[in-house]
Amino acid sequence: MPYQYADSKLKIFSLNSNYPLAQEIAELMGVELGKSSVKHFSDGEIQISIEESIRGCDVFIVQSTSAPVNEHLMELLIMVDAVKRASARTVNVVIPYYGYARQDRKAKAREPITAKLVANLLETAGATRVIVLDLHAPQIQGFFDILIDHLMAVPLLSQYFKEKLSGEDVVIVSPDHGGVTRARKMAERLKAPIAIIDKRRPKPNVAEVMNIVGNVEGKVCILIDDIIDTAGTITIGANALIESGAKEVYACCSHPVLSGPAIERIENSAIKELVVTNTIQLSEEKMSPKIKQLSVANLMAEAISRVYENKSVSTLFD
Amino acid sequence: MPYQYADSKLKIFSLNSNYPLAQEIAELMGVELGKSSVKHFSDGEIQISIEESIRGCDVFIVQSTSAPVNEHLMELLIMVDAVKRASARTVNVVIPYYGYARQDRKAKAREPITAKLVANLLETAGATRVIVLDLHAPQIQGFFDILIDHLMAVPLLSQYFKEKLSGEDVVIVSPDHGGVTRARKMAERLKAPIAIIDKRRPKPNVAEVMNIVGNVEGKVCILIDDIIDTAGTITIGANALIESGAKEVYACCSHPVLSGPAIERIENSAIKELVVTNTIQLSEEKMSPKIKQLSVANLMAEAISRVYENKSVSTLFD
Amino acid sequence: MPYQYADSKLKIFSLNSNYPLAQEIAELMGVELGKSSVKHFSDGEIQISIEESIRGCDVFIVQSTSAPVNEHLMELLIMVDAVKRASARTVNVVIPYYGYARQDRKAKAREPITAKLVANLLETAGATRVIVLDLHAPQIQGFFDILIDHLMAVPLLSQYFKEKLSGEDVVIVSPDHGGVTRARKMAERLKAPIAIIDKRRPKPNVAEVMNIVGNVEGKVCILIDDIIDTAGTITIGANALIESGAKEVYACCSHPVLSGPAIERIENSAIKELVVTNTIQLSEEKMSPKIKQLSVANLMAEAISRVYENKSVSTLFD
Amino acid sequence: MPYQYADSKLKIFSLNSNYPLAQEIAELMGVELGKSSVKHFSDGEIQISIEESIRGCDVFIVQSTSAPVNEHLMELLIMVDAVKRASARTVNVVIPYYGYARQDRKAKAREPITAKLVANLLETAGATRVIVLDLHAPQIQGFFDILIDHLMAVPLLSQYFKEKLSGEDVVIVSPDHGGVTRARKMAERLKAPIAIIDKRRPKPNVAEVMNIVGNVEGKVCILIDDIIDTAGTITIGANALIESGAKEVYACCSHPVLSGPAIERIENSAIKELVVTNTIQLSEEKMSPKIKQLSVANLMAEAISRVYENKSVSTLFD
Amino acid sequence: MPYQYADSKLKIFSLNSNYPLAQEIAELMGVELGKSSVKHFSDGEIQISIEESIRGCDVFIVQSTSAPVNEHLMELLIMVDAVKRASARTVNVVIPYYGYARQDRKAKAREPITAKLVANLLETAGATRVIVLDLHAPQIQGFFDILIDHLMAVPLLSQYFKEKLSGEDVVIVSPDHGGVTRARKMAERLKAPIAIIDKRRPKPNVAEVMNIVGNVEGKVCILIDDIIDTAGTITIGANALIESGAKEVYACCSHPVLSGPAIERIENSAIKELVVTNTIQLSEEKMSPKIKQLSVANLMAEAISRVYENKSVSTLFD
Amino acid sequence: MPYQYADSKLKIFSLNSNYPLAQEIAELMGVELGKSSVKHFSDGEIQISIEESIRGCDVFIVQSTSAPVNEHLMELLIMVDAVKRASARTVNVVIPYYGYARQDRKAKAREPITAKLVANLLETAGATRVIVLDLHAPQIQGFFDILIDHLMAVPLLSQYFKEKLSGEDVVIVSPDHGGVTRARKMAERLKAPIAIIDKRRPKPNVAEVMNIVGNVEGKVCILIDDIIDTAGTITIGANALIESGAKEVYACCSHPVLSGPAIERIENSAIKELVVTNTIQLSEEKMSPKIKQLSVANLMAEAISRVYENKSVSTLFD
Repeated sequence: MPYQYADSKLKIFSLNSNYPLAQEIAELMGVELGKSSVKHFSDGEIQISIEESIRGCDVFIVQSTSAPVNEHLMELLIMVDAVKRASARTVNVVIPYYGYARQDRKAKAREPITAKLVANLLETAGATRVIVLDLHAPQIQGFFDILIDHLMAVPLLSQYFKEKLSGEDVVIVSPDHGGVTRARKMAERLKAPIAIIDKRRPKPNVAEVMNIVGNVEGKVCILIDDIIDTAGTITIGANALIESGAKEVYACCSHPVLSGPAIERIENSAIKELVVTNTIQLSEEKMSPKIKQLSVANLMAEAISRVYENKSVSTLFD
Repeated sequence: MPYQYADSKLKIFSLNSNYPLAQEIAELMGVELGKSSVKHFSDGEIQISIEESIRGCDVFIVQSTSAPVNEHLMELLIMVDAVKRASARTVNVVIPYYGYARQDRKAKAREPITAKLVANLLETAGATRVIVLDLHAPQIQGFFDILIDHLMAVPLLSQYFKEKLSGEDVVIVSPDHGGVTRARKMAERLKAPIAIIDKRRPKPNVAEVMNIVGNVEGKVCILIDDIIDTAGTITIGANALIESGAKEVYACCSHPVLSGPAIERIENSAIKELVVTNTIQLSEEKMSPKIKQLSVANLMAEAISRVYENKSVSTLFD
Repeated sequence: MPYQYADSKLKIFSLNSNYPLAQEIAELMGVELGKSSVKHFSDGEIQISIEESIRGCDVFIVQSTSAPVNEHLMELLIMVDAVKRASARTVNVVIPYYGYARQDRKAKAREPITAKLVANLLETAGATRVIVLDLHAPQIQGFFDILIDHLMAVPLLSQYFKEKLSGEDVVIVSPDHGGVTRARKMAERLKAPIAIIDKRRPKPNVAEVMNIVGNVEGKVCILIDDIIDTAGTITIGANALIESGAKEVYACCSHPVLSGPAIERIENSAIKELVVTNTIQLSEEKMSPKIKQLSVANLMAEAISRVYENKSVSTLFD
Repeated sequence: MPYQYADSKLKIFSLNSNYPLAQEIAELMGVELGKSSVKHFSDGEIQISIEESIRGCDVFIVQSTSAPVNEHLMELLIMVDAVKRASARTVNVVIPYYGYARQDRKAKAREPITAKLVANLLETAGATRVIVLDLHAPQIQGFFDILIDHLMAVPLLSQYFKEKLSGEDVVIVSPDHGGVTRARKMAERLKAPIAIIDKRRPKPNVAEVMNIVGNVEGKVCILIDDIIDTAGTITIGANALIESGAKEVYACCSHPVLSGPAIERIENSAIKELVVTNTIQLSEEKMSPKIKQLSVANLMAEAISRVYENKSVSTLFD
Repeated sequence: MPYQYADSKLKIFSLNSNYPLAQEIAELMGVELGKSSVKHFSDGEIQISIEESIRGCDVFIVQSTSAPVNEHLMELLIMVDAVKRASARTVNVVIPYYGYARQDRKAKAREPITAKLVANLLETAGATRVIVLDLHAPQIQGFFDILIDHLMAVPLLSQYFKEKLSGEDVVIVSPDHGGVTRARKMAERLKAPIAIIDKRRPKPNVAEVMNIVGNVEGKVCILIDDIIDTAGTITIGANALIESGAKEVYACCSHPVLSGPAIERIENSAIKELVVTNTIQLSEEKMSPKIKQLSVANLMAEAISRVYENKSVSTLFD
Repeated sequence: MPYQYADSKLKIFSLNSNYPLAQEIAELMGVELGKSSVKHFSDGEIQISIEESIRGCDVFIVQSTSAPVNEHLMELLIMVDAVKRASARTVNVVIPYYGYARQDRKAKAREPITAKLVANLLETAGATRVIVLDLHAPQIQGFFDILIDHLMAVPLLSQYFKEKLSGEDVVIVSPDHGGVTRARKMAERLKAPIAIIDKRRPKPNVAEVMNIVGNVEGKVCILIDDIIDTAGTITIGANALIESGAKEVYACCSHPVLSGPAIERIENSAIKELVVTNTIQLSEEKMSPKIKQLSVANLMAEAISRVYENKSVSTLFD
C-alpha cells in the first residue's frame, strides 16, 4: 500500500469490465472503491446510482471498453453523467483498454471514425480527463480536447523478456507493416534487431505468400502487437517464423482481446508463451497455460496519484 | 405505395432493431432501403459501412433503441457518424421507441439523467433531427437542441377501441398516478370517464392496498400506459379492476417492451386483450395470442414525407 | 444565525424580485448581502454594477423569475454576465420560482419550448449551477447541462397540515389529471388517500361537468398544486368538492403567482385557507387573510451552505 | 410594391415593437406579414405561437429592442426559438434599433458587457443572421459569430439636409468626443467642416464649461448622434452653439429613444428641427411638431430582398 | 522585487516577441521565467516544448502579437495548446500589444473581422484569461467570452508629461476624428483643452486640406494615439500644428509599431519627442534619440499579482 | 477544360502559397479564379478583401500551409473568416499540403498537438469542409469534426514508376519504421516486395549502424516517404542501399518541403531521380534537374467537382 489516500478527496470507482484491476489499484492507493450500483434491467437498460457523496471530489472511474464493448461503453457514459451531476470537481476516466481504437480513420468510403466518435461521446457526457494505455495509434490523443495521459506497457513487457531471455540472440518481430514502430521501441530496450512479417504476391495471379523481411534464422523471436484479437495474424506469423528457421517464438501484446478462435489458435500455434497485461480481464476459459498476464495496476496507481497530486506524469517513463 | 420517392434525394436506412417496420415504411415511400452493412465482430465491436453514395441526400435512419438497448444505441450513434462523414445533407434519426426515456430526471441523489445524456450523444454524433413517438414524458422534447417531431399513437389505439367496443360502457384507467394525462387523452377521444389505480397504505403499519379511484363497476375498462415492461403494474391493476366489479379489462400501450416475466404475467392475468404498436419488434416467443399489434408505419411514412417536403407535420394529428 | 460565513469566499447577492427572502437567507448564513446596484433607466434598459470585489468567490444570486418575468429574467442574465466577467470562481443562480416553467414542451405545432430556452440563456450568460424549488415538471432538470439542485416544498407544506389537521379524516386532491403524482407525494406523508378533479363531457354535445374521481364525502380536502396563477382551476375545484360533500377545503401550492383575478376568486371561494411559500414575494394587495405564507429561507440557506461546503444536498430531504 | 415575393419561401413576421415599420416593409416586398400570436398573460409571461407552416422557409423577424426593452428582447428570443423549432431554413433577425448597444465594454470594474450578452443570447436562441442599422459602435458586429448585415442611416439623413439646406453655410457638429467619426461621415456627404462640443474644466476647482472646438459662428449647425435618449447632451449642445454665434441649429439621429424629459427638452431647446428615422416607433405623445421622421423601410426591404436572393448587400451603399 | 512568488503555483513564460519585458516582469514578481524552448525549423514550423512541470499551476504567457505578427500569434496559440495539455490550472495570456486590433469591424463589404477571429482562436486554443493593454477599441473586450483584464497606459503617459511640461500652456491633440475620446482622457488628467486634426475638402474639386479644429496657437501640443504604425498621420499632423502656430509638438502612444518609413518620418518631423511604452520591443535601428520608452512592467506585474491573488484589478487605476 | 462551371455557384480562390496549382485547377474547372486581394502591411499584418459577391456560393480556397507556414496559415484563417462573413453557402478549404502534420501526438511530455490545434483553428474560423492530400498520419482525419476528403498521391506516383521502370526488378523501400504501410501500398500497385531501412545499435556502447531489413541486392529501389524535408533520412538511406548492393535508387514523396540543406543533399546523394508532386510550389533555386514534379491538379479538380456535384469522391480511387 504505497499511497495513503483514505481520507482525501480522491475517489476511485469501478464499473463492470475489470473489477479485479480496479480493486488492485484501489488497494495500492490505500482507499476503498467508491460505493455505487450498476443494475442491468430485464429490458437491457442500465441504471447507475452512486451511493456516497462525491461533491467537490476528484473522481477516477476505472473501465475498459472491452467486450461486451457497447455495454461497457454505455456504463461508462452513464456513470460519467452521474458523477458530473453529483458535483464532482473533476471526472477522470481511466480506460486501460480503449475499444474501437482500430476504427481511427476512414479506411474506405462512407465509414465512420468510431474512435473519434467515442472520444466526442466521453467529452459530451462530461469527462474532464482520460487516462489510457497504449492506444492503437498515438494520434488518437489528438481526438480529445480534454486532457489525456497516455501510458505505455512496452517497458513492462520489455523488462519481462529482458530477464527471461537474458543471453539469448533475440529479434523483435512486427506481425505486420503497421506495427514496426512498436517493434522498434521494444528492440531499443532489448538492444535487438527487428524483422517484419509481410504478406505479398510476388507476381500477378500468384498466390499470396508469407514473407519475412529481416533475418530470424536461429534466433529467439518476440512478436509484438498492441492488440491480439482473433490471433490469426500472430499465430500464422509465429508459424512462418519457425518455418524460416527461428529457434523459438514468443509473443506479447498490451491488450488481450482474444475473441472467437483466439485461444484455440494460440494453443495450436508455434508460440511458446504469450505475454499480456491485465488491461482486459480474462475469463476462466481464456486462462490458457501458454498465457502469462502482467499487471498494470502499479503503473495505473502511480499515474492516478500523480494526476491527483499535480505531479509530472511523464517522469513515469524514465 | 402512396409515395414515389424512388429517384429522389430521400434515403431510408434500417439498422438492426426493427427491420420489418423500416421495410414497411420504405415500401410505403416507394423506395428501396439504403444499402449498408452492420457487422458485429467477435470482440463485440460494431463496424458499419454505407454501400451507396449519399452525398447531399436527406437520410432517415430507422432504429428503435429497444433491447439490447446499448447495442442498438451504439449502432445508431456509429451510423449517424458514418452518415455525417459521408456528406449527407441532413441526418434524420427516426426512433420509434426511445430507450432510457424513463430516466428523465434525478429521482434520487447522484443519479444520471440518462434520457438527456442520450439526447446529447445523438447531437454530438451529428444528428440534425429526430422523429420519435410517444416519449415517456413530453418534456424530453426539450432535451434536444436539434429539431424534433413528436408523433402520438393515442389516435391509432383509440380508433381501434372505438370500433371494437362500440356501444359498450367504457372507462379509461390509468395504471398509476403519473399516467392520468395520457388516460385523459384517450378518454376524450372515446367520450369516456377515467379512473386511476392507486396503491396506498390507509394507516401506518397497515399493508399496502390496491385502491381504485373512480367508478369501474360493470364497465369495460381500458388500461392505458406508454410502456409495458415487466407488466407487473398493468396485470395487478387489471386483476384489481375485475375484483372491483369491472366487466372486462383491455390494456394498451405504445411501446411493448415486454421484458422478463411480462408474457407469462399477461397470459395469466385478467387482461382480455393487450393492444400494442410495432415500435418495438416482438420476437417469436412474445407473440402471445392475447397481443394485438397495430402498425405505425403509415404514421411514420407520412411524417418522413412531410419532413422531406417541408410540409407541416402537425396537421398529421387533425 | 446558524451559519458563520462572514469572512468567507461565499457571497450572496439579491436582485429585485424577492429582496426579503434573499435578506432572510443572508441573515441565516451570517453574511451581509453583496453590494450591487441595479438601475432601470428611463428608456427601460437595466444597468448593473457590482460594488465589491468578488474575484475567486463562490457567488450566489437570488432571483425569482416572477412577474414582471421578463424584467426579472433580464436582470438575472445581465447580473450573471457581470459576475462572470468579474472573475467569480462559480456563478450560482438561486431561482426560488422558475418562470416560464409551464412552457416545457411543444403542446401545439410551432410553439417554442421557453423553459428550455431560459435554461440555455442562463448557461450562455455564464451560470455554472442553478438551485431551484419545485419545477413544474421534474424533467426540466434535464434541460440544463450545468449542475442543478432541485429542492422541494412538499415536506414543508405537509408538515404544516400534519400539525394543523391532526385527527381529521383528510384526502389529498389533485386539481387536474397532470398533478396526481404531486398529490400522491403529500398523501404519503399524511397517510391519506387521494382524489382527482376531472373535467369531462359524459356524451357528445353535452356540457362539460366537474367530476370528482375518488371519495371526498365528509372529508377534509387539501387541494395541492405547484403553481396557482389566476386561481380558476383551484377555486372551481374547491367549490365542486364542497358540492360533492367535502367537510372543508384547504389549498396549498409552492409558488403563489396569484395574477389577475386570483385574490378575488380565492376570497370568494370555498377555500378555507391557502398555504403558500415565499418563493414569490406577495405585494400588499395580495395579502389576503385567507393566505398563509411559509418561508423557504431555511431550506435555501441549508442548500447554499451544503453546496458551498461540498456536502450532500440530498440528505436535506431525509 | 417593388418586389413580388407573395408565393415564395420568404416570410416576414412582426413582433410588438414596431408593427408599422414591419407592415411597410412587408408591403414593399409584396407579401402579407406572417400569422402569429404573441400573448402576454396576466402573470407577465409571453406565449408565442406561429399560425402558419414555415418549414424550409427563410424567415425574417422584425423587432426593435426599444422600450420596454426587456419585454421586446424576450419576445424576440422566444420567437426565434419557436421559428427554429418549426423547422425554418434560416432564422433572420431584423433589429432596426439594437437596444443595450451602449453597454458595449466594461467602462468600470465589474460591469457586464450587455451588448455582447444580447448577441450571445440571440445566437443561443437560434438566430442564423442579424440585420441591424447604425450600431452604437461598429465593433459590435464582431460580437456576433453568426452573419450580420450592418445598414446605415447617414445617407438618408444627409440627403434630407442636402436638399433642405442647399446653399447654406453648414457645419456638422458632434455633441461629444465619441461621435466625431459619425459627424465626419455626414460632413463628407455635405462637403462641410466639423465641430465638436467638448465639456471641460479649464483649471482645477473651476466650474465645467461648454466648449465648442471648431468654428460655428454665423453657420447653420447640424448636430448628429446615433441615439438621442433623454436629449440632455444634444439640447445643451444646441443652446451652446447658438450662444457661440450659430445661425441655426438642426439635430438628427438614427434612433429616437426619446425617453424621460426628452420631448420637453427638445421643444424648449434651440433646436429648430430634429430629424430621426422610424427604427423606433414613436408614441402619440412623442409626436412633437419639431420632429421629422424618415422611413428606413425601403432600405430594410432592399436588404431583406438581397439577403434572400443572395445578392450583394454592400452595393446598397453606393 | 516587490513580490515573492518564487515557490508558488504562479509561473510566467515568455515567448519570442518581447523577452526583455517578460524578464522585467518576472524579476518584479520574484520568479525565474519558466523553462521552455521555441524552435523554428528550417521549413518554418514552430516546435514548442515546456521543460518543467506545470500541472495545477496558474500559467501566465507573455507575448505581444507584434511584427512578425503571424509568427508571434502562432507561437502563442501553440504555446497555449501545450500549456493546456500539460494540465495547467489556468492559462493566462498576457498580450501587451494585441495585433490585428485595427481590423475590428467590416469597414467594407466582404472583409474579415480579424480582431474577433484572433479572440476566437485564443479561446479555441485553450486560453482561460487574457490581459491586454490599450485595445484599439475598448469594444474588443466584448469579442472574448473568456475573462479579460484591460489595462491602460494613459496614466503612465500623462504622469510623464505632467512632470515634464509643468507650467506650460498645453493642448492635447487627437490626430484624427476617431481618437478624440483618448485625447479627452489625457486632457482630463492634465486639465488641458483638446484639439483635433481633421482632413477635409472645403468644396468639391478642391484639394484636401489639413484642418485644425480647436485652438493651438502658441501652445505646447501633445499628440496622442494608441498605435503609431508608419507614422504618416502623426508627423503630417505635427507639422500642421507648427504651421498653425503651435509652440512645440510632443507625441505619444501606447504601442510603437513604427513600421516602414516611421523612424525616418519621425526624425524629419516637427515632433520634439515621441513618448512610447515598451509593449513592443524596439529593435536597435528604431532606437531614435527622439523616442523615449516608458516601461509597463510594473503595471503588468501588479495586474498579474492581483489576478493570481484574486484581488481587484480595477483598483489599479485609482 | 473538362468541366464548365463558369456561371455556376462554384467559386475558387487562391491565396499566396501555391498560385500556379490553383490556377491550373481553375482552368480545368473552366472558371476564373475569384477576385480577392491579400495585402501584407509593413507591420506584418495581413489584410484580405474579397472583390466579388459570393453570397450563397460554394467557395473553395486553395492554400498549402507550406513555408512560410505561419503566414500561410494565418492567410487561410483570415480568408475563411472573410468568406464566412460574406455569406458563402459553404467554405471549403483545399489544403494540398497540410503543415504541422508531423506534430500529431505528444511525443514527449508537455508538447502541444499542433496538427489538432490547426484543425480546431480552421473549424473555429468557419471552414465547413477540408480537402487534403496524403496526411502524415491518416488518423488526422479524426481531428476534424467537419467534413474531410482525403486524397492520395500513391496512385499517381506508382503509375509514373510503373511506366518508367517496366521490366526492372523493383523493391519498394521505407526509409524508416514508421512508413512501412505507405511502402506496402506502392508495393501492391507495382507487385513488388518491400524493404526497410532501420537504424540501430547492435550492442550497447556500439555505434549506430544503418541496417537494411529485407533484400535489395541487384534491385532497383524506390524509396517512398510522404514528406521530404531536410532530406537527411532519405539521402543517407539511398546511399546505404547502394552500399548494400542496390542497382539504382529512386525516391519519391507527396510533399516536397525540401528545406535547409535538402537540395544540396539530394544532388550529392545516390538518388537517381526524386519524384514529387506540386502540392508545394518549388522556388527557382529548388528546381534541381534530379527532381521531377507531377501535377495533382487533375485529382484536385475532380475532387472539387465531385464535392460540388454531390457525387462520390471515393470512386476517384478505383
